[in-house]
Amino acid sequence: MDYLWIMIGSALGGAARFWVTGFVAEQTGGIFPWGTVLINVSGSFLIGFFGSLTGAEGRFVVGESARLFVMIGLCGGFTTFSSFSLQTLNLMRQGEMIRAGGNIALSVVFCLLAVWLGHVVAVAINQMKGA
Amino acid sequence: MDYLWIMIGSALGGAARFWVTGFVAEQTGGIFPWGTVLINVSGSFLIGFFGSLTGAEGRFVVGESARLFVMIGLCGGFTTFSSFSLQTLNLMRQGEMIRAGGNIALSVVFCLLAVWLGHVVAVAINQMKGA
Repeated sequence: MDYLWIMIGSALGGAARFWVTGFVAEQTGGIFPWGTVLINVSGSFLIGFFGSLTGAEGRFVVGESARLFVMIGLCGGFTTFSSFSLQTLNLMRQGEMIRAGGNIALSVVFCLLAVWLGHVVAVAINQMKGA
Repeated sequence: MDYLWIMIGSALGGAARFWVTGFVAEQTGGIFPWGTVLINVSGSFLIGFFGSLTGAEGRFVVGESARLFVMIGLCGGFTTFSSFSLQTLNLMRQGEMIRAGGNIALSVVFCLLAVWLGHVVAVAINQMKGA
């Protein structure tokens, strides 16, 4: 059953990734892979938030299936390292070294900030009295 | 139809990711996220290889659906930025700053080398005479 939930989550995450990538490329002209950055940053936020909200010290108790569905399925299927690598390579091959370096720096820094922020927000919710 | 192929590819990629992660954690003890590194490096190699082998100057002509299935579906569903972010955060929270930094450096450097190597191998095959 674990695999079923992960596969459904990954399928939904992958479809959402394709949609967001296309939409963002349309809006921004596609010179810089903003879509992939947005996907990886928001997916990193979600895994940090959901992981800490439903973890051992979390306020919300959910089954292992729900955690696998959201964290391994949805977040894992939504985010991508392969497109990040390919888009960085393509920028380098076009001689766009500053954009390539910017893509690496932005992706790594903002994804780490996002997963940390998701964790911090979840911890704050976990510690709220009442509610 | 594009979405169907992407969802099937992402589902298969996500299931494979879960299996590889578990298998590698079993083999290595799980102190360092080697599974995610392996996944992201091999997925980056595959997207670079397949992309250049079947692209505009590639030797193999495949339909757009096949490219979406492999590159956006399989590779995108297999690789993950969210687990990379979460695992790096967890190492930092455990005070394992060297392991956290190592995870970032290894992931970024080896994924970029892998996508480049995939591209180079594909170009070499594209340029082979005969065959």
